[in-house]
Amino acid sequence: MKRILPVLTLLFATARVQAQQEDSLMIRRIADEILVNGKAYDNLRQLTKQIGGRLAGSPQMVKAEQWGLALMQQSGADKAWMQQCMVPHWVRGGKDEMWSTVIVSQKKLSGPDARIENKFYDVVALGNSVGSGPNGVKGEVMLVNSFDELEKRKDEVKGKIVFYNYRFNDKFINTFHAYRDAGQYRGQGPSRASKYGAVGVIIRSLSNATDNSPHTGATRYDSAYAKIPAVAVGLRHADGLAEYLKNNKVYMTIKTNGKFLPDTIGHNIIGELKGTEFPDEIITVGGHLDSWDNCEGAHDDGAGCVQTIEILRALKAIGYQPKHTIRFVLFANEENGLRGGNKYAEEAKANNEKHLLAMESDAGGFTPRAIGFSGTEQQYAKVAAWKTLLAPYGCTEIANGGGGADIGPLNRALKTPTASLNPDPQRYFDIHHARTDVFEAVNKRELELGAINMAAFIYLVDKYGL
Amino acid sequence: MKRILPVLTLLFATARVQAQQEDSLMIRRIADEILVNGKAYDNLRQLTKQIGGRLAGSPQMVKAEQWGLALMQQSGADKAWMQQCMVPHWVRGGKDEMWSTVIVSQKKLSGPDARIENKFYDVVALGNSVGSGPNGVKGEVMLVNSFDELEKRKDEVKGKIVFYNYRFNDKFINTFHAYRDAGQYRGQGPSRASKYGAVGVIIRSLSNATDNSPHTGATRYDSAYAKIPAVAVGLRHADGLAEYLKNNKVYMTIKTNGKFLPDTIGHNIIGELKGTEFPDEIITVGGHLDSWDNCEGAHDDGAGCVQTIEILRALKAIGYQPKHTIRFVLFANEENGLRGGNKYAEEAKANNEKHLLAMESDAGGFTPRAIGFSGTEQQYAKVAAWKTLLAPYGCTEIANGGGGADIGPLNRALKTPTASLNPDPQRYFDIHHARTDVFEAVNKRELELGAINMAAFIYLVDKYGL
Repeated sequence: MKRILPVLTLLFATARVQAQQEDSLMIRRIADEILVNGKAYDNLRQLTKQIGGRLAGSPQMVKAEQWGLALMQQSGADKAWMQQCMVPHWVRGGKDEMWSTVIVSQKKLSGPDARIENKFYDVVALGNSVGSGPNGVKGEVMLVNSFDELEKRKDEVKGKIVFYNYRFNDKFINTFHAYRDAGQYRGQGPSRASKYGAVGVIIRSLSNATDNSPHTGATRYDSAYAKIPAVAVGLRHADGLAEYLKNNKVYMTIKTNGKFLPDTIGHNIIGELKGTEFPDEIITVGGHLDSWDNCEGAHDDGAGCVQTIEILRALKAIGYQPKHTIRFVLFANEENGLRGGNKYAEEAKANNEKHLLAMESDAGGFTPRAIGFSGTEQQYAKVAAWKTLLAPYGCTEIANGGGGADIGPLNRALKTPTASLNPDPQRYFDIHHARTDVFEAVNKRELELGAINMAAFIYLVDKYGL
Repeated sequence: MKRILPVLTLLFATARVQAQQEDSLMIRRIADEILVNGKAYDNLRQLTKQIGGRLAGSPQMVKAEQWGLALMQQSGADKAWMQQCMVPHWVRGGKDEMWSTVIVSQKKLSGPDARIENKFYDVVALGNSVGSGPNGVKGEVMLVNSFDELEKRKDEVKGKIVFYNYRFNDKFINTFHAYRDAGQYRGQGPSRASKYGAVGVIIRSLSNATDNSPHTGATRYDSAYAKIPAVAVGLRHADGLAEYLKNNKVYMTIKTNGKFLPDTIGHNIIGELKGTEFPDEIITVGGHLDSWDNCEGAHDDGAGCVQTIEILRALKAIGYQPKHTIRFVLFANEENGLRGGNKYAEEAKANNEKHLLAMESDAGGFTPRAIGFSGTEQQYAKVAAWKTLLAPYGCTEIANGGGGADIGPLNRALKTPTASLNPDPQRYFDIHHARTDVFEAVNKRELELGAINMAAFIYLVDKYGL
């Protein structure tokens, strides 16, 4: 026995090295296929340039669904279908506007900032915002830097337009932390101001960009208070307005045209590669097909959609036959409802499906840096060991914690482990929900490398389970 | 003794943890200073938009030198000076042109590619290229995919224009490997074709961009052969020409106007923070001030220059007093001569200077991924242990091997260890030496994070030595 053990240990070690080499070669094959024959970039061009922004309920949503279904079929899915769900149908309804009307100047400014009356600001209504009516809402602008300040000065709010000038915190290295930190003003700001009688809300765009494009995104009204119009203002204009307010009173008019039409029919677009050994165990990978209407939704989340389809195409192209069933999903209505993600989870639960993993790409098509993973500690230890296989392709970290909005419901319904592609976050909030989120902001190889790392991770989960 | 040893071990371990915490806090201070008060981005805007391309010997070089010197002084250098060196003075001399003249068609094409006679190609002469004379050079285009093919078909070369269509290899994950692989065609291509009687050379641009901008860069003539005009062609035009040549003969005219004027005076721009403990031991950090003339030289290497100055500014702003002398250097003439780097090393050697480390940023202002380091194994082991301190800021790797063109001479003269900032390489060759290397291609935070990681590394070398 004493002589057999070392031999067995050696055999296991050899087998492990051999498996690692096999995995390394397989991932290299996937990478070569995507880098040399990749279609993700051209597909993204089609989605962004031929269809464009595609908010839930819009005609572009319908076009994008057809595009996605056809592409799933062309890319080699064994089966592709549309999973119906009802989606909200908010429309912007026209151009959002904001301009200063009356100024009570306590101190004259000189230079380019001096002209402030009838100054038009670059704004965009927040998603879900109500319309102001044809004459707009008018009021004195009250700048607050935080909810704390709002609460302290709540008696001053009545009849005013509250301007939340909370800044994106540049000190966060990961810009998603700054987004989370500032995001509450977009989500809760309108209702918290309305509670004290505000007639409208301006928020500083959730961004650290160097330009002046305003950034939209969903707000959530608290039904206890009147719904008031809410716009985001570009950062340079936010700075200018804040500067002016130091010494002056500014009266502003905000004109928005948003409204909800009745809920309408939308779809998750699903393609499938059937598993050869465990056809009833499902690995889901996806992004969301909808985007805001004021942009092309190239990074958010056209990138995630074309990466998802590229993984399907590449696995099929190299003749890979998965052990488990892999589902490629373009989710509906992530931006202002999450109805697609909810529907996917509901059906999975109703059908007693077994889900091994759900993975999402919804943080931009930038150069990949990490895979995020949420599961048991044992599962995390297992996937973390794959780091050396992914590192050559950019994901030098397997982060403990990862998922996405669309796959959250599946996790909650079935305790499915979730994973995310974590690309470099520095450029994301420059363009997120702004008119600058266009095809030209995406780099072909960065997009492809994202798909490669996701495909490699899925391959490893398919081979070794969790 | 048995009881003292564990206590001592514990004390050392505690001291080490404390030192790590101190370092972590100091790096956080540097990072906050750069992220909140950073001037690198605005400085880069000045350099690129007010001065622009600044090839050695050009009037823009002189302006850039003055700009750099003033900025070193404003940013807090104890001392700033210009180190004179003679630099080559190549001028492009006018617009580079290439057009097809006579076509012998064996197979008619249809569609947009059909019109090939008198088709103008998007080209740029390689740096150092000779002029063609006012009438240009004319010849039949001979496409070769490699030097091997050239050698095999050397008898066909006489009187022709050789078109090296060697592709950037998309399979390399690190694009610098693809650049090194394809770079020989730009460097040696003209003389190797001239050896067999070619009258001109076209090279496929050294890039994997999705656009058609041609990429220049230095070529090196072998004095044994006639110097012939050489241009780089944009990738889409290269593909189109290659496609056409499958079934047709194409005669091309190339017109270039390049020439060398007499060598002229240039300068390295140097700022210094004097060391408090080891003033005679020098840490050098730098980038190169020159750039090609057909672009703004924003990533190559305006980024390295403004990062260098930002490190000076930030260390001074937080009141850091280095133990060693730190020199901040904007090197002259990296692109087509390396006279600045050579001069710096010569003077260091002549003055018996002691150099602890030289570090360079010359791979673009993109999001940082690694620090490269070249020194002894012992030194590498020491710096590699700093990885956990840098990782939160993006450099998740300390790579074994690093340096830069400008600090190479110092390494050869004094065996000085060298280091480099290794940013993400995916976007670099999209814009490298092309008209698209402009300020707008640089992201503020990515640029700043590069400076942060370099500053942190320099701080650690200053504190702990090598």
